[in-house]
Amino acid sequence: MKLYYSPYSPFSRKVRIAAAALGFGAELELTPTETINPDDPIRQKNPLGKIPTLETDDGDCIFDSAVIAAWLDAQAGGGRIIPRDPKARTRALVLESLADGLAEAAVLIIYESRFREPEERSGKWLAHQGEKIARALARLEQAPPALAGTPDIGQIALACALGYLDLRFSGEWRATHPRLVAWLDDFAETTPAFAATAA
Amino acid sequence: MKLYYSPYSPFSRKVRIAAAALGFGAELELTPTETINPDDPIRQKNPLGKIPTLETDDGDCIFDSAVIAAWLDAQAGGGRIIPRDPKARTRALVLESLADGLAEAAVLIIYESRFREPEERSGKWLAHQGEKIARALARLEQAPPALAGTPDIGQIALACALGYLDLRFSGEWRATHPRLVAWLDDFAETTPAFAATAA
Repeated sequence: MKLYYSPYSPFSRKVRIAAAALGFGAELELTPTETINPDDPIRQKNPLGKIPTLETDDGDCIFDSAVIAAWLDAQAGGGRIIPRDPKARTRALVLESLADGLAEAAVLIIYESRFREPEERSGKWLAHQGEKIARALARLEQAPPALAGTPDIGQIALACALGYLDLRFSGEWRATHPRLVAWLDDFAETTPAFAATAA
Repeated sequence: MKLYYSPYSPFSRKVRIAAAALGFGAELELTPTETINPDDPIRQKNPLGKIPTLETDDGDCIFDSAVIAAWLDAQAGGGRIIPRDPKARTRALVLESLADGLAEAAVLIIYESRFREPEERSGKWLAHQGEKIARALARLEQAPPALAGTPDIGQIALACALGYLDLRFSGEWRATHPRLVAWLDDFAETTPAFAATAA
Protein backbone atom coordinates (compact mmCIF):
# COMPACT_ATOMS: atom_id res chain seq x y z
CA MET A 1 0.00 0.00 0.00
CA LYS A 2 1.08 3.51 -0.87
CA LEU A 3 1.04 6.46 1.50
CA TYR A 4 0.98 9.90 -0.11
CA TYR A 5 2.62 12.00 2.55
CA SER A 6 5.02 14.73 3.54
CA PRO A 7 7.73 14.24 6.16
CA TYR A 8 6.62 17.53 7.80
CA SER A 9 2.88 16.77 8.03
CA PRO A 10 1.73 15.86 11.57
CA PHE A 11 -1.20 13.90 10.13
CA SER A 12 1.10 11.90 7.86
CA ARG A 13 3.32 11.15 10.84
CA LYS A 14 0.28 9.94 12.79
CA VAL A 15 -0.48 7.39 10.08
CA ARG A 16 3.16 6.28 9.84
CA ILE A 17 3.36 5.69 13.60
CA ALA A 18 -0.02 3.93 13.59
CA ALA A 19 1.18 1.65 10.78
CA ALA A 20 4.41 0.87 12.65
CA ALA A 21 2.52 0.16 15.90
CA LEU A 22 0.31 -2.29 14.00
CA GLY A 23 3.22 -4.04 12.28
CA PHE A 24 2.57 -2.55 8.82
CA GLY A 25 5.58 -0.25 8.76
CA ALA A 26 7.45 -2.21 6.09
CA GLU A 27 4.39 -2.47 3.82
CA LEU A 28 3.86 1.27 3.63
CA GLU A 29 5.34 2.60 0.40
CA LEU A 30 6.10 6.21 1.29
CA THR A 31 5.33 8.55 -1.62
CA PRO A 32 6.45 12.15 -1.12
CA THR A 33 3.75 14.60 -2.14
CA GLU A 34 3.68 18.30 -2.97
CA THR A 35 0.15 19.38 -2.22
CA ILE A 36 0.66 22.87 -3.67
CA ASN A 37 1.93 21.52 -6.99
CA PRO A 38 -1.08 21.19 -9.35
CA ASP A 39 0.68 18.43 -11.32
CA ASP A 40 1.28 16.23 -8.29
CA PRO A 41 -0.76 12.99 -8.57
CA ILE A 42 -2.36 13.61 -5.14
CA ARG A 43 -5.29 15.50 -6.70
CA GLN A 44 -6.21 12.40 -8.68
CA LYS A 45 -6.05 10.23 -5.57
CA ASN A 46 -7.89 12.65 -3.29
CA PRO A 47 -9.86 15.52 -4.88
CA LEU A 48 -9.16 17.62 -1.79
CA GLY A 49 -5.44 17.37 -2.63
CA LYS A 50 -4.69 16.61 1.02
CA ILE A 51 -2.21 14.34 2.69
CA PRO A 52 -2.05 11.77 4.09
CA THR A 53 -3.94 9.67 1.54
CA LEU A 54 -3.52 5.90 1.48
CA GLU A 55 -3.87 3.90 -1.73
CA THR A 56 -4.56 0.25 -1.00
CA ASP A 57 -3.25 -2.64 -3.10
CA ASP A 58 -6.78 -2.78 -4.63
CA GLY A 59 -6.40 0.84 -5.79
CA ASP A 60 -8.90 2.28 -3.27
CA CYS A 61 -7.93 5.66 -1.88
CA ILE A 62 -8.54 6.26 1.81
CA PHE A 63 -8.49 9.59 3.70
CA ASP A 64 -8.37 11.51 6.05
CA SER A 65 -5.76 10.43 8.63
CA ALA A 66 -8.40 9.29 11.15
CA VAL A 67 -10.11 7.09 8.56
CA ILE A 68 -6.75 5.64 7.47
CA ALA A 69 -5.81 4.85 11.08
CA ALA A 70 -9.17 3.13 11.69
CA TRP A 71 -8.76 1.13 8.47
CA LEU A 72 -5.23 0.03 9.44
CA ASP A 73 -6.50 -1.00 12.89
CA ALA A 74 -9.25 -3.08 11.27
CA GLN A 75 -6.73 -4.67 8.88
CA ALA A 76 -4.70 -5.72 11.94
CA GLY A 77 -7.74 -7.42 13.46
CA GLY A 78 -9.18 -4.44 15.35
CA GLY A 79 -8.92 -3.15 18.92
CA ARG A 80 -5.19 -2.44 18.80
CA ILE A 81 -4.84 1.35 18.46
CA ILE A 82 -8.61 1.98 18.56
CA PRO A 83 -9.95 0.40 21.75
CA ARG A 84 -12.95 -1.92 21.51
CA ASP A 85 -14.37 -0.89 24.89
CA PRO A 86 -16.88 1.89 24.12
CA LYS A 87 -15.74 4.30 26.87
CA ALA A 88 -12.03 3.85 26.08
CA ARG A 89 -12.77 4.12 22.38
CA THR A 90 -14.60 7.41 22.72
CA ARG A 91 -11.84 8.74 24.98
CA ALA A 92 -9.19 7.83 22.37
CA LEU A 93 -11.15 9.31 19.45
CA VAL A 94 -11.93 12.56 21.29
CA LEU A 95 -8.26 12.89 22.21
CA GLU A 96 -7.42 12.30 18.54
CA SER A 97 -9.83 15.12 17.57
CA LEU A 98 -8.36 17.46 20.17
CA ALA A 99 -4.77 16.74 19.10
CA ASP A 100 -5.65 16.98 15.40
CA GLY A 101 -7.44 20.28 16.04
CA LEU A 102 -4.35 21.57 17.83
CA ALA A 103 -2.15 20.51 14.90
CA GLU A 104 -4.61 21.95 12.39
CA ALA A 105 -4.51 25.34 14.12
CA ALA A 106 -0.69 25.21 14.03
CA VAL A 107 -0.77 24.33 10.30
CA LEU A 108 -3.09 27.31 9.64
CA ILE A 109 -0.57 29.59 11.39
CA ILE A 110 2.19 28.26 9.11
CA TYR A 111 -0.02 28.63 6.01
CA GLU A 112 -0.56 32.28 6.94
CA SER A 113 3.01 33.05 5.88
CA ARG A 114 3.22 30.37 3.18
CA PHE A 115 0.16 31.49 1.19
CA ARG A 116 0.06 35.21 1.88
CA GLU A 117 1.96 38.38 1.24
CA PRO A 118 2.95 40.15 4.49
CA GLU A 119 0.13 42.72 4.15
CA GLU A 120 -2.43 39.92 3.74
CA ARG A 121 -1.69 38.38 7.13
CA SER A 122 -4.21 38.81 9.91
CA GLY A 123 -3.27 39.26 13.56
CA LYS A 124 -6.84 38.43 14.50
CA TRP A 125 -6.76 35.12 12.64
CA LEU A 126 -3.34 34.19 14.03
CA ALA A 127 -4.56 34.99 17.56
CA HIS A 128 -7.70 32.90 17.02
CA GLN A 129 -5.60 29.87 16.03
CA GLY A 130 -3.01 30.51 18.75
CA GLU A 131 -5.71 30.55 21.42
CA LYS A 132 -6.99 27.15 20.29
CA ILE A 133 -3.49 25.76 20.72
CA ALA A 134 -3.06 27.42 24.14
CA ARG A 135 -6.41 26.13 25.44
CA ALA A 136 -5.80 22.60 24.15
CA LEU A 137 -2.31 22.51 25.71
CA ALA A 138 -3.67 23.83 29.03
CA ARG A 139 -6.35 21.13 29.12
CA LEU A 140 -3.89 18.37 28.23
CA GLU A 141 -1.32 19.59 30.76
CA GLN A 142 -3.87 19.09 33.56
CA ALA A 143 -3.97 15.35 32.92
CA PRO A 144 -1.82 13.84 30.16
CA PRO A 145 -3.24 10.49 29.00
CA ALA A 146 -1.88 7.39 30.78
CA LEU A 147 0.52 5.35 28.62
CA ALA A 148 0.58 1.55 28.83
CA GLY A 149 1.73 -0.80 26.06
CA THR A 150 0.74 -0.02 22.48
CA PRO A 151 -0.36 3.63 22.27
CA ASP A 152 -3.90 4.37 21.12
CA ILE A 153 -4.70 6.67 18.21
CA GLY A 154 -5.37 9.61 20.54
CA GLN A 155 -1.94 9.30 22.11
CA ILE A 156 -0.28 8.93 18.71
CA ALA A 157 -2.08 12.06 17.48
CA LEU A 158 -1.04 13.99 20.57
CA ALA A 159 2.63 13.05 20.15
CA CYS A 160 2.50 14.18 16.50
CA ALA A 161 0.82 17.48 17.39
CA LEU A 162 3.48 18.23 20.01
CA GLY A 163 6.21 17.14 17.60
CA TYR A 164 4.82 19.60 15.06
CA LEU A 165 4.99 22.43 17.63
CA ASP A 166 8.63 21.45 18.22
CA LEU A 167 9.33 21.46 14.47
CA ARG A 168 7.61 24.75 13.58
CA PHE A 169 7.62 26.82 16.76
CA SER A 170 10.98 25.88 18.33
CA GLY A 171 9.34 23.95 21.15
CA GLU A 172 8.11 27.12 22.87
CA TRP A 173 5.28 25.10 24.45
CA ARG A 174 7.79 23.15 26.56
CA ALA A 175 8.62 25.85 29.12
CA THR A 176 5.04 26.05 30.40
CA HIS A 177 3.87 22.44 30.06
CA PRO A 178 6.25 20.24 32.07
CA ARG A 179 3.84 17.31 32.42
CA LEU A 180 3.30 17.16 28.67
CA VAL A 181 7.06 17.31 28.11
CA ALA A 182 7.49 14.32 30.45
CA TRP A 183 4.59 12.58 28.72
CA LEU A 184 6.16 13.06 25.27
CA ASP A 185 9.49 11.69 26.59
CA ASP A 186 7.65 8.57 27.84
CA PHE A 187 5.81 8.23 24.54
CA ALA A 188 9.05 8.50 22.54
CA GLU A 189 10.72 5.90 24.74
CA THR A 190 7.94 3.32 24.35
CA THR A 191 7.22 4.08 20.66
CA PRO A 192 10.43 3.99 18.58
CA ALA A 193 8.51 5.01 15.44
CA PHE A 194 8.19 8.49 16.93
CA ALA A 195 11.92 9.21 16.65
CA ALA A 196 12.11 7.29 13.37
CA THR A 197 9.51 9.60 11.77
CA ALA A 198 10.99 12.91 12.96
CA ALA A 199 11.43 15.43 10.13
CA MET B 1 -27.73 15.01 25.78
CA LYS B 2 -26.77 18.53 24.78
CA LEU B 3 -25.55 19.57 21.34
CA TYR B 4 -23.54 22.79 21.17
CA TYR B 5 -24.23 23.93 17.65
CA SER B 6 -25.03 26.67 15.19
CA PRO B 7 -27.93 26.47 12.73
CA TYR B 8 -25.53 27.53 9.94
CA SER B 9 -22.77 24.99 10.58
CA PRO B 10 -22.72 22.10 8.06
CA PHE B 11 -21.03 19.85 10.63
CA SER B 12 -23.70 20.62 13.23
CA ARG B 13 -26.36 19.82 10.67
CA LYS B 14 -24.67 16.49 9.93
CA VAL B 15 -24.94 15.50 13.59
CA ARG B 16 -28.56 16.64 13.82
CA ILE B 17 -29.54 14.59 10.76
CA ALA B 18 -27.57 11.59 12.06
CA ALA B 19 -29.35 11.85 15.41
CA ALA B 20 -32.75 12.06 13.70
CA ALA B 21 -31.96 9.09 11.44
CA LEU B 22 -31.05 7.06 14.53
CA GLY B 23 -34.18 8.06 16.46
CA PHE B 24 -32.40 10.40 18.90
CA GLY B 25 -33.79 13.65 17.48
CA ALA B 26 -36.02 14.38 20.48
CA GLU B 27 -33.23 13.69 23.00
CA LEU B 28 -30.86 16.24 21.50
CA GLU B 29 -31.01 19.45 23.52
CA LEU B 30 -29.94 22.05 20.96
CA THR B 31 -27.71 24.71 22.53
CA PRO B 32 -26.91 27.67 20.26
CA THR B 33 -23.23 28.54 20.41
CA GLU B 34 -21.19 31.59 19.44
CA THR B 35 -17.74 30.23 18.74
CA ILE B 36 -16.22 33.70 18.33
CA ASN B 37 -17.53 34.91 21.73
CA PRO B 38 -14.79 34.22 24.32
CA ASP B 39 -17.43 34.01 27.09
CA ASP B 40 -19.46 31.31 25.37
CA PRO B 41 -19.33 28.04 27.38
CA ILE B 42 -18.13 26.11 24.30
CA ARG B 43 -14.46 26.72 25.18
CA GLN B 44 -14.97 24.91 28.50
CA LYS B 45 -16.64 21.98 26.75
CA ASN B 46 -14.16 21.76 23.87
CA PRO B 47 -10.80 23.58 24.20
CA LEU B 48 -10.76 24.06 20.43
CA GLY B 49 -13.94 26.14 20.77
CA LYS B 50 -15.45 24.27 17.84
CA ILE B 51 -18.95 23.09 17.09
CA PRO B 52 -20.58 20.67 17.03
CA THR B 53 -19.68 19.37 20.49
CA LEU B 54 -21.95 16.86 22.24
CA GLU B 55 -22.22 16.71 26.02
CA THR B 56 -23.57 13.37 27.18
CA ASP B 57 -25.87 12.91 30.17
CA ASP B 58 -22.74 11.72 32.05
CA GLY B 59 -21.06 15.07 31.34
CA ASP B 60 -18.55 13.70 28.82
CA CYS B 61 -17.85 16.00 25.88
CA ILE B 62 -17.52 14.43 22.45
CA PHE B 63 -16.15 16.01 19.26
CA ASP B 64 -15.60 16.40 16.31
CA SER B 65 -18.70 15.71 14.18
CA ALA B 66 -17.38 12.37 12.84
CA VAL B 67 -16.69 11.11 16.38
CA ILE B 68 -20.13 12.26 17.55
CA ALA B 69 -21.82 10.49 14.62
CA ALA B 70 -19.92 7.26 15.34
CA TRP B 71 -20.85 7.51 19.04
CA LEU B 72 -24.52 8.04 18.20
CA ASP B 73 -24.45 5.05 15.84
CA ALA B 74 -22.94 2.88 18.60
CA GLN B 75 -25.59 4.13 21.09
CA ALA B 76 -28.24 2.98 18.61
CA GLY B 77 -26.71 -0.51 18.47
CA GLY B 78 -24.23 0.05 15.64
CA GLY B 79 -24.29 -0.53 11.90
CA ARG B 80 -27.09 1.94 11.15
CA ILE B 81 -25.42 5.03 9.64
CA ILE B 82 -21.91 3.54 9.76
CA PRO B 83 -22.00 0.23 7.90
CA ARG B 84 -20.58 -2.86 9.60
CA ASP B 85 -19.31 -4.39 6.34
CA PRO B 86 -15.66 -3.29 6.07
CA LYS B 87 -15.79 -2.23 2.39
CA ALA B 88 -19.07 -0.32 2.79
CA ARG B 89 -17.80 1.21 6.02
CA THR B 90 -14.62 2.53 4.42
CA ARG B 91 -16.60 3.84 1.46
CA ALA B 92 -18.97 5.73 3.80
CA LEU B 93 -16.15 7.16 5.93
CA VAL B 94 -14.09 8.28 2.92
CA LEU B 95 -17.19 9.96 1.47
CA GLU B 96 -17.68 11.66 4.85
CA SER B 97 -14.08 12.93 4.71
CA LEU B 98 -14.50 14.17 1.16
CA ALA B 99 -17.77 15.96 1.94
CA ASP B 100 -16.39 17.40 5.20
CA GLY B 101 -13.29 18.61 3.36
CA LEU B 102 -15.50 20.28 0.76
CA ALA B 103 -17.53 21.98 3.53
CA GLU B 104 -14.35 22.94 5.40
CA ALA B 105 -12.96 24.65 2.28
CA ALA B 106 -16.26 26.54 1.93
CA VAL B 107 -16.13 27.59 5.60
CA LEU B 108 -12.56 28.88 5.10
CA ILE B 109 -13.78 31.00 2.18
CA ILE B 110 -16.49 32.50 4.42
CA TYR B 111 -14.00 33.07 7.26
CA GLU B 112 -11.81 35.02 4.83
CA SER B 113 -14.32 37.87 4.94
CA ARG B 114 -15.49 37.29 8.50
CA PHE B 115 -12.05 37.46 10.15
CA ARG B 116 -10.17 39.81 7.83
CA GLU B 117 -10.12 43.37 6.66
CA PRO B 118 -10.49 43.66 2.87
CA GLU B 119 -6.75 44.25 2.37
CA GLU B 120 -5.93 41.11 4.35
CA ARG B 121 -7.80 38.82 1.98
CA SER B 122 -5.82 36.56 -0.31
CA GLY B 123 -6.89 35.66 -3.82
CA LYS B 124 -4.37 32.82 -3.79
CA TRP B 125 -5.89 31.29 -0.63
CA LEU B 126 -9.46 31.73 -1.90
CA ALA B 127 -8.50 30.05 -5.19
CA HIS B 128 -6.81 27.19 -3.31
CA GLN B 129 -9.99 26.51 -1.34
CA GLY B 130 -12.25 27.03 -4.36
CA GLU B 131 -10.29 24.46 -6.35
CA LYS B 132 -10.77 21.86 -3.62
CA ILE B 133 -14.52 22.43 -3.83
CA ALA B 134 -14.50 22.27 -7.64
CA ARG B 135 -12.48 19.03 -7.73
CA ALA B 136 -14.61 17.38 -5.05
CA LEU B 137 -17.84 18.34 -6.85
CA ALA B 138 -16.47 17.09 -10.18
CA ARG B 139 -15.57 13.72 -8.65
CA LEU B 140 -18.95 13.37 -6.92
CA GLU B 141 -20.86 14.40 -10.05
CA GLN B 142 -19.32 11.44 -11.93
CA ALA B 143 -21.04 8.96 -9.62
CA PRO B 144 -23.26 10.23 -6.80
CA PRO B 145 -23.58 7.61 -4.04
CA ALA B 146 -26.56 5.23 -4.34
CA LEU B 147 -29.34 5.97 -1.84
CA ALA B 148 -31.34 3.12 -0.27
CA GLY B 149 -33.13 3.30 3.08
CA THR B 150 -31.41 5.01 6.00
CA PRO B 151 -28.61 7.20 4.65
CA ASP B 152 -25.06 6.48 5.79
CA ILE B 153 -22.82 9.10 7.37
CA GLY B 154 -21.06 9.81 4.07
CA GLN B 155 -24.35 10.59 2.37
CA ILE B 156 -25.50 12.73 5.29
CA ALA B 157 -22.21 14.66 5.18
CA LEU B 158 -22.54 15.18 1.42
CA ALA B 159 -26.08 16.55 1.73
CA CYS B 160 -24.90 18.98 4.43
CA ALA B 161 -21.92 20.12 2.35
CA LEU B 162 -24.16 20.81 -0.66
CA GLY B 163 -26.71 22.51 1.60
CA TYR B 164 -23.92 24.76 2.85
CA LEU B 165 -22.99 25.73 -0.72
CA ASP B 166 -26.67 26.59 -1.27
CA LEU B 167 -26.74 28.69 1.90
CA ARG B 168 -23.50 30.61 1.41
CA PHE B 169 -22.89 30.65 -2.34
CA SER B 170 -26.43 30.96 -3.74
CA GLY B 171 -26.40 27.40 -5.08
CA GLU B 172 -23.98 28.31 -7.90
CA TRP B 173 -22.82 24.66 -7.98
CA ARG B 174 -26.23 23.56 -9.26
CA ALA B 175 -25.92 24.75 -12.85
CA THR B 176 -22.94 22.49 -13.59
CA HIS B 177 -23.73 19.43 -11.45
CA PRO B 178 -27.14 18.11 -12.52
CA ARG B 179 -26.62 14.59 -11.15
CA LEU B 180 -25.73 15.93 -7.72
CA VAL B 181 -28.78 18.21 -7.82
CA ALA B 182 -30.98 15.17 -8.53
CA TRP B 183 -29.16 13.24 -5.81
CA LEU B 184 -29.79 15.97 -3.24
CA ASP B 185 -33.48 16.06 -4.20
CA ASP B 186 -33.68 12.30 -3.60
CA PHE B 187 -31.84 12.63 -0.30
CA ALA B 188 -34.17 15.40 0.88
CA GLU B 189 -37.21 13.34 -0.06
CA THR B 190 -36.13 10.25 1.86
CA THR B 191 -34.60 12.13 4.83
CA PRO B 192 -37.12 14.64 6.26
CA ALA B 193 -34.52 15.86 8.79
CA PHE B 194 -32.69 17.54 5.91
CA ALA B 195 -35.46 20.09 5.33
CA ALA B 196 -36.15 20.29 9.06
CA THR B 197 -32.55 21.40 9.74
CA ALA B 198 -32.30 24.01 6.97
CA ALA B 199 -31.00 27.38 8.23
